[in-house]
Amino acid sequence: MKEIRVFSPATVANVNCGFDVLGFALDGLGDEMVIRKVPEKGIKITKITGAELPYKAKENVVGVAGLAMVEALNLDFGFEIEIHKNIRLGSGVGSSAASAAGIVYGINQFLETPLSNLELTAFGMKGEAVASGNEHADNVAPCLYGGFTLITGYEPLRIVSLPVPEELYVTIIHPHITIKTKEAREILPEQVSLKNAIKQTGNLAGLIAGLYEADYGLIASSTQDVLVEPYRKNLIPDFDFYKQTALKNGGLAFGISGSGPSMFTLSKGLQNAGAVEFALKKALKEKNMKSESYVSPVSKHGNRILEQK
Amino acid sequence: MKEIRVFSPATVANVNCGFDVLGFALDGLGDEMVIRKVPEKGIKITKITGAELPYKAKENVVGVAGLAMVEALNLDFGFEIEIHKNIRLGSGVGSSAASAAGIVYGINQFLETPLSNLELTAFGMKGEAVASGNEHADNVAPCLYGGFTLITGYEPLRIVSLPVPEELYVTIIHPHITIKTKEAREILPEQVSLKNAIKQTGNLAGLIAGLYEADYGLIASSTQDVLVEPYRKNLIPDFDFYKQTALKNGGLAFGISGSGPSMFTLSKGLQNAGAVEFALKKALKEKNMKSESYVSPVSKHGNRILEQK
Repeated sequence: MKEIRVFSPATVANVNCGFDVLGFALDGLGDEMVIRKVPEKGIKITKITGAELPYKAKENVVGVAGLAMVEALNLDFGFEIEIHKNIRLGSGVGSSAASAAGIVYGINQFLETPLSNLELTAFGMKGEAVASGNEHADNVAPCLYGGFTLITGYEPLRIVSLPVPEELYVTIIHPHITIKTKEAREILPEQVSLKNAIKQTGNLAGLIAGLYEADYGLIASSTQDVLVEPYRKNLIPDFDFYKQTALKNGGLAFGISGSGPSMFTLSKGLQNAGAVEFALKKALKEKNMKSESYVSPVSKHGNRILEQK
Repeated sequence: MKEIRVFSPATVANVNCGFDVLGFALDGLGDEMVIRKVPEKGIKITKITGAELPYKAKENVVGVAGLAMVEALNLDFGFEIEIHKNIRLGSGVGSSAASAAGIVYGINQFLETPLSNLELTAFGMKGEAVASGNEHADNVAPCLYGGFTLITGYEPLRIVSLPVPEELYVTIIHPHITIKTKEAREILPEQVSLKNAIKQTGNLAGLIAGLYEADYGLIASSTQDVLVEPYRKNLIPDFDFYKQTALKNGGLAFGISGSGPSMFTLSKGLQNAGAVEFALKKALKEKNMKSESYVSPVSKHGNRILEQK
């Protein structure tokens, strides 16, 4: 094998009550990368489309994650990379994680003894850190594992792959506003009430059980974020209006995707997800907010090979 | 059917990182009650063994829960009750909940159209309130449902029955000290750090996934309470020593049962649970602390009928 073309999906991190620990992968929306094995060691980025990003490997998420992997494995060959971005930078659906996960997934296909998803996640996090300032796995993990992933610890890194109910669909709406990750962090309080903390543990526990039971009612009643959303929603004008619109039009659960500005809605069935998209587009238009939207099943597979030569 | 003898199990509420939302039932340790159908309406307590408790129905957990149920259903008959307590009052393994759940479970057997466990839990909570001062379900629910139960909401009451891994055993150790529920409540802070709150959501989510996956390693790594135990452990002298003893001797997870003073250890297999019991008994003796101990599987069934006439 000389060359491989991989798909790297967009991902939703946090998932409302799963702040900092839960994420899931989308189907359909994602980046593509071409990874070519070459005799020269290291990582060389030869082409970037869809976004303006640095070509220097050490300054690029793809390069940093890829270099971390090839250097740790001490490979005696290297890679040329083409990056084709479809996920908008800063939209809140894991653009940098798709880059980071895509390259480590791609390189892994060229290894005689492939690494586990857990090991790949650790390398992917190195790339993610270039974009976000700290190593975190809540987008990289679902990108690699597919489906829902739960991070239960970082030292050591522990990831649990959760089941995906058959009919779970997601609607993403991306309003054209900018939220800086730093700002989204700073708006959070340092202290919260014990009462709300306990409530949130029960909510996330209910969501996890809902995924295992494919109990859409339980997913709907549990996906309530009492800790983070009350603060972060202030960064998105008319958030409550959009939330009510989504939930009134068949959505089970609504929340900010990652640190925003994209918002996700979970629905049972494609028809509901489509109805939510239609209603939300109308709602955003009403508020004179430009936006893009996507409807997708929750992907069970994450990264995948599109073509190989 | 004229008379029924029911078993009502001891229960462990809170379960470490599941504070206020999680509970499970024991097998083997529990109260017995004889419930006799009589023409006279209402609830009459005719015998109490094993504990000193009021005979007046309105002052007794059994009476209050039973009356709430017979009055709501407007039954044209009543019950005579014998209460045989085996669970020590104030030991932290759901003594009052066993009384409350036992009576509503028993009465339910005499109904032409039996109520659901959810409806029974709501009546049981009325009785529980007599003993604890507020209506809560975290002992009553596992008593009625068996296994692990998750309370995801009170208005409306929502209970999720979770799977029990086949080899999950529990060791209970009851040191002879007194902890008042009020004191156990007052020792808790009103505010906690957002960081710890998020950590706890991940821990409970991991425990829930561990129960579904029967992944004992995940149960062990997830069952960490960073919110409540750091405060409540101060009410139990040498708590850390006992915890280390349990975890060093094969225990997966250790914590305070309810608001204590009993402590529970979860283990994989009867042999490990026995080894934990042996080591803990020795540890408590070393500290000159009198105690009782029990080893039991996590009960899958909760309340059950022992005999009927």
